[in-house]
Order: sequence, then structure tokens, then C-alpha cells
Amino acid sequence: MTPIITAFERPPDGGRGLARDMRVRWALEEVGQPYDVRLVSFTEMKEPAHLALHPFGQIPTYEEGDLGLFETGAIVFHIAERHAGLLPDDANARARAITWMFAALSTVEPPILELGTARLLEGDKPWSEQRMPLVEDRVRDRLGQLSARLGDADWLDGGFSAGDLMMASVLLRLRLSGILDEYPNLSAYVARGEARPAYKRAFDAQLAVFEASTAGRR
Amino acid sequence: MTPIITAFERPPDGGRGLARDMRVRWALEEVGQPYDVRLVSFTEMKEPAHLALHPFGQIPTYEEGDLGLFETGAIVFHIAERHAGLLPDDANARARAITWMFAALSTVEPPILELGTARLLEGDKPWSEQRMPLVEDRVRDRLGQLSARLGDADWLDGGFSAGDLMMASVLLRLRLSGILDEYPNLSAYVARGEARPAYKRAFDAQLAVFEASTAGRR
Repeated sequence: MTPIITAFERPPDGGRGLARDMRVRWALEEVGQPYDVRLVSFTEMKEPAHLALHPFGQIPTYEEGDLGLFETGAIVFHIAERHAGLLPDDANARARAITWMFAALSTVEPPILELGTARLLEGDKPWSEQRMPLVEDRVRDRLGQLSARLGDADWLDGGFSAGDLMMASVLLRLRLSGILDEYPNLSAYVARGEARPAYKRAFDAQLAVFEASTAGRR
Repeated sequence: MTPIITAFERPPDGGRGLARDMRVRWALEEVGQPYDVRLVSFTEMKEPAHLALHPFGQIPTYEEGDLGLFETGAIVFHIAERHAGLLPDDANARARAITWMFAALSTVEPPILELGTARLLEGDKPWSEQRMPLVEDRVRDRLGQLSARLGDADWLDGGFSAGDLMMASVLLRLRLSGILDEYPNLSAYVARGEARPAYKRAFDAQLAVFEASTAGRR
């Protein structure tokens, strides 16, 4: 059964692969699972039909027969559990890969989201200029720790896993800020993720949505 | 083999059960798995021995033979996967319970953490008073959506699961702010969690650590 995911009808990131459907697309491409995409507008995301699927009114969602899931982490884990290629077979290595998925979402991403909020929602506030360095330094705290752990390894724990997929996706959000470049090994780590054929296929698919949405507006 | 978790030697929350070891203790109590606790000081948390176990220098960690894990979500999931009682047997229900774990940590907790940061780390800043309502409203956005989904159900999806354990733990952090009381069904939901015998055993165990640490300071 071909799963169906949802994505923004008009991607607000300009097709740069920062919307969370990218993470699910990447996971599906890594395991070779074809999928369908249903595009939703910002209005539709807040309507009852979508809220029944995603109580927080966001994308992506994942439908497979009578199973409906939301939360990128849960969807990527569901895909990783059912297909080979994203989680190691060894039980301990598998538990550690899952740990990195949670670390990406619960420990590394929150200060990065806060940086985004500070820019997008509070960039015009009187405190913005004075506060921004504090917010940036919270991101740097996490990145310094992550950089120290990664060292010169290719991936966080042995071979590429769903943990790396999630961590690289989270770090990608920082690229435009310039902060990622302060940590050359993390910057190279993200580039290794982007160089994967599955990443490229997922990226092209989400870019095509953006390009179609732009064409439609002309 | 008895697992070993780490917790704060001097709990900064005054033993109110808000430190993240509480979530792991609660999970272990729910499944009836005895555990040992190793207390760590704030200094030890930033030293190489602890950083080898937890790259971000936090608690809790989880050691079981040659497996070492960090990240509360990953530890609770590991416990839930290996013992009956925290995840449903039905595959779809299990995937939805895991979804609520991720939702608690990735969608509901970040604005709550931001509220904590605004109070603890920026409470003395010139912008604090003016900014606080914005931060509180971001928490309310999530709580309103969660409240609408929960409705008058006891738990988020059928019986109590690891998803409820995590969501109730996240919401508990809001109690002192008064915001939780604005959503009576969420407040009752958290109270149902706290009324579970396993929660109470875990709570008493972490409170005992705080009380011992206070006695030691006299």
C-alpha cells in the first residue's frame, strides 16, 4: 500500500528543503518506498479534516490504510521500523540510533526553533537586537557539544541511520544563519547527508512542489 | 540485570518531580523494573566521564550492561519496548502511542521550555515584562490544540501509554505558572497521571534524593 504524506501547497521556505515533509520524503527515499503527496493550504491545515489527522494543524502527516500518523519523528521511526536501511540490526546499536533521533528533536532542535522564532516573530520587537546574541549562544552551546561528540566520524554512531537523517535535517535549518559554518565538522556532516542520492531525490521532489506553486501564481 | 540511571545529586526543582529522571523512574515503576540510581553533581555532569555517556552533559542516562543511553524519550521508549505495560500490542495503536511521545517532546515541550528560559535566564532583562505574554501565548496555542484533541477522554489514545507518561510529564512543568489551570481537561489529565501508583513511587523516590541533599547541607 502506497503511503500518503501531506506537504505545504505553497512551501514557505522557497523549496529549500526546510519544511518537515522533507524529513519524511528523505526517509522514504532511503528505504525505497514510493509515496503519494497531498498538498494542503494554510487554510486547510486549520480545518477539521486536517486537524483530525494532525491535532496541531501542521504538516507532514502519514496515512497508510487505516493508520494515520503525525509528528515527523514518529513517522520517520515508523518507516525505519518497517523497512531495512535506517536502523541497525544489533539491538544496542538500534537503541543508540533511536537516541540520536530523540536528541535531534528534543535537545538540538529547540534552541534552533527559538532562533527562528526570535527572527521571524520577534525580529521587529524593540528587544530583538539586544536579545539575539543570547539566543544564538544557546544554539552554539548545543552545537559545540555535538561537534565534540561527532569528532572526525562520518556519522554519529557507526553507519548512517535515522538518527543522522534527523540530526542533519535539524542542523540544515541553521545554514542561512552562518552559525553552522562555525563548526566545520558539523558543516561537513550535513553536506554528507545532502550528498546522499536519497536526499537529492527528496529535495528535488519538494522543490518541484515549490516551483509548481510559483508557476501557479503567475 | 538492574539498570542504572543518573539523577541530580541536588535536584534544582526542590524535589517537585520536574527533573527528567522522574520520567524514567515513572516508566520503570509502571513496568515493575527495579533500578539503581547514581547521583551526579553539576560539576560531574560536565566532566569527561559523564560526557562519554551523555554528550550534552545532562541527566538522566541509562546503563544496562554494555548499553548506555541518554535522552529521556529514547530511554522511556527502550523501557516500553522491552516490557509490557507502556505500549499497546496492536501495531497501529503502538505507532500512535509513539507519535504522542514525539508530540510531547517535539511539539508541546519546546514552547514550555522557552517559557522556562524566559523566566529563569531572561527574567532580569529589560524586555522580560513586555515579552512574557508572547511566550505564554505560544504555550496556550499548543495547549488549546491538545485540549481540543483530548476532549473528555481519560488518555490521548485508548489506554494509558508511554505517550501519556511523556505528555503528562511535560505538562506538569506548567503547573506553577497557572497556565495549565486554564485548561480543566488537561489539568485533570495530569492529575490522573499523578494518581497512578507508579507515579507516586517514582515521585517519592526523587523526593527522597532532594531531602537527603538538603539534610547534607545543614
